[in-house]
Amino acid sequence: MSSEPLASESRAASSRTGTTAALARFISAAAGSRLPACVERLSGRAFANWIGCALGAVTDESLRKIVGVARGVGGAAQASIVGRSERIDVVNAALVNGFGANALDFDDMHVRTLIHPTGAVVAAALALAEREHASGALLASAIAVGIEIECRLGLALFPGHYNAGWHITSTLGTLGAAGAASTVLRLAPERAAHALGIAATQAGGLRSMLDNPCKSFNIGRAAAAGTLAALLAAADLDSAPDAIETQHGLMDVFGATSGRDDITRGLGTSYLLPEVSFKPYPCGVVIHPTIDACLELAHERPVRARDVSVIRMAVHPRVLELAGRRHPATAIGGRFSVYHAAALALNRQSAGIAAFDQCDIADPELAALRERMQVEADASLRPGQARLRIQFVDGRSVEQNIDHPSGSPERPLTDDQLRAKFLELATRAVDEVHAAALFESCLALGELDDVAGLRRHWAVR
Amino acid sequence: MSSEPLASESRAASSRTGTTAALARFISAAAGSRLPACVERLSGRAFANWIGCALGAVTDESLRKIVGVARGVGGAAQASIVGRSERIDVVNAALVNGFGANALDFDDMHVRTLIHPTGAVVAAALALAEREHASGALLASAIAVGIEIECRLGLALFPGHYNAGWHITSTLGTLGAAGAASTVLRLAPERAAHALGIAATQAGGLRSMLDNPCKSFNIGRAAAAGTLAALLAAADLDSAPDAIETQHGLMDVFGATSGRDDITRGLGTSYLLPEVSFKPYPCGVVIHPTIDACLELAHERPVRARDVSVIRMAVHPRVLELAGRRHPATAIGGRFSVYHAAALALNRQSAGIAAFDQCDIADPELAALRERMQVEADASLRPGQARLRIQFVDGRSVEQNIDHPSGSPERPLTDDQLRAKFLELATRAVDEVHAAALFESCLALGELDDVAGLRRHWAVR
Repeated sequence: MSSEPLASESRAASSRTGTTAALARFISAAAGSRLPACVERLSGRAFANWIGCALGAVTDESLRKIVGVARGVGGAAQASIVGRSERIDVVNAALVNGFGANALDFDDMHVRTLIHPTGAVVAAALALAEREHASGALLASAIAVGIEIECRLGLALFPGHYNAGWHITSTLGTLGAAGAASTVLRLAPERAAHALGIAATQAGGLRSMLDNPCKSFNIGRAAAAGTLAALLAAADLDSAPDAIETQHGLMDVFGATSGRDDITRGLGTSYLLPEVSFKPYPCGVVIHPTIDACLELAHERPVRARDVSVIRMAVHPRVLELAGRRHPATAIGGRFSVYHAAALALNRQSAGIAAFDQCDIADPELAALRERMQVEADASLRPGQARLRIQFVDGRSVEQNIDHPSGSPERPLTDDQLRAKFLELATRAVDEVHAAALFESCLALGELDDVAGLRRHWAVR
Repeated sequence: MSSEPLASESRAASSRTGTTAALARFISAAAGSRLPACVERLSGRAFANWIGCALGAVTDESLRKIVGVARGVGGAAQASIVGRSERIDVVNAALVNGFGANALDFDDMHVRTLIHPTGAVVAAALALAEREHASGALLASAIAVGIEIECRLGLALFPGHYNAGWHITSTLGTLGAAGAASTVLRLAPERAAHALGIAATQAGGLRSMLDNPCKSFNIGRAAAAGTLAALLAAADLDSAPDAIETQHGLMDVFGATSGRDDITRGLGTSYLLPEVSFKPYPCGVVIHPTIDACLELAHERPVRARDVSVIRMAVHPRVLELAGRRHPATAIGGRFSVYHAAALALNRQSAGIAAFDQCDIADPELAALRERMQVEADASLRPGQARLRIQFVDGRSVEQNIDHPSGSPERPLTDDQLRAKFLELATRAVDEVHAAALFESCLALGELDDVAGLRRHWAVR
């Protein structure tokens, strides 16, 4: 006899013991039990941060365009468009909410992989949780599961995958979203494995989109793809049961750079949620240490271009790679320019959302400050570090070193800081009373009986 | 002054002269003028072949699952689900019809790239053409444009892209579908460029899906993504205007293997449509030369296992790579086994859809024939060639060599052969009168006033 049946049996056996199967069992188990209290609390914080970002983007021009298209093709009222009274089908809800929550570049970051963890994951999980009238505890589990899957895959693929040009939050967000959606739908392990496969074959998203509105579209699309994957798997559509580890599967095609066993080690007992940073500034996270340093130095008075002879900065090399444009041409470009963000922090003493939104990118004072900057890539620095030195024309000089940016796991936002960020964002869409109540509900996510009830806070107008 | 503004200007300038812009101008020009008559005729043949395949799959079990999910999330009645009376929004119509037209593995092939050219392209173009009540001439142009874009990109990326594990009909079908959809929507060049960008960042699809239902899902998803890309671009959502050629763009990330100038050489004057093969057999196209040889040798009487001592075949190496499983475990696996297809052709004297559908994959006679086969990969053969020699137990032997498979550009199906294939498929969904009328309408696509009228032929039950 030939060997093909054996090869087939061997693949079937390995598909029960491989990475995809282990992640699928993790999904299924998470839907059947409550998270450890400390993890559930972190999941609630992540959810609150995501909801704030989604509400803050409610007037975003590109989001308006996506919502218009989604309304043109979308189906029944199953889930919220966050910040609006209308509802839409779950796939389109995931699309627009994933877009919206990322639009302000104010969301969150898993620094070791450069993944924005909640973006696609919460968009997919929330849409289905609303449709299913799921409990907050189940949604919290789904969020933790989705983040765990995308960040573990990210640790296996980073940095080769990212350096090859993949927008990692989009590619792996598709898997995370599928994992979260499968948790909400309480898929059995076999079906959850197929959901991961259907997601893997939809994974995509190019880094060439990072300076245009498709940056956020990539996140929305990942959320929609993950939602669709879970729905199709629930409807018994099959995929490869070993899509992550098989030949021509996810890891093979997207370029694994480390051992694949790492992906599932400690799964279900240790969580990556504590590594998630919440952004204190609405811009590329690689810029944050520099902003911290600038805000410290400008704490007492604004720094003006005419007083400065040179501003020297040393940063991790990736800062110049991702945010190295001195004079950005657009507002979104300004959120990815270390020069512009530093100028804003020094001169306006803020790098909050109002500061970014209200300043003119071409403001002569900011442009002059950007001209005075010398930014050096220093490979001896960690991504969270920055060194800043300002030489003034009067001969004075000041220095500031940052080792861990605010919002990082080493310097996490307090609940009060998170609330302040949430209220600034949420009050763009709803009044202060609803914003405050919504924040408390999000933060105590695990206590909610029905996630669908949250929309009463934004569907009031 | 720093150099960034110049770099930005330079990118803007190159984005007007680059590959993406040239393809976008091609799209826009095609929407404004009629195809050369011979190309329009080929577009009609391709359309007829696609419609036949879509109708033939109407009872497919996996398609039924996709349709169920699409109906659960889908929107307004804008476009047909081919073969059914109901309609759905254009994105979900593209999803289900792209799936359906590929489900039987009976569609078509551009041999130099292994792309199934109409799969995603027609699904996207038809959905929007129905919604827009477009003329047949415009749909024919859209189909030609979509095929041209995906196959030209394919020629630049093949074989490296395919060998890396990408399901090329899915990855580049996304771009082809967006090009076709943009033609139907008559997008201006600037908007069409953004549609290509929005498509590029959705491109994906893994070869590990080729033995499961996600093979066809990949095509449907590509169609849906291309449709969405055109709708978003039409709604003024921006992307990278040079997404195909820029750093971290399509060619860079998906691995170009040839000069990029080739992509646009002769664009608008020479067409790749004449290179498209229509499948005479519902199975992997690499197997077709072998089937031709088997059918020739079994022309007079069936070949029985007990009469045969050995069946020797020499084939292009890709045959064993793609279709080398001797004893497939599933019906879909049987369509990608050169052993099974050859056994069917030798013993049942047919490799038509009824033969594939009605035989039991585990039939002992077929299994015994498969056991007697010795298949050798011969790198000196072209993909369209096959050498077959049967040694009988009585000492006789027969040989058959094929240099060009039937259905190939060198041995194209006649209109009568195409009609026969169409009628076998279409009568699974509609009666013979409607099937015959529909075929004539498809073949003369350029003469149709309103594409939306076609559905009267399948929306009768």
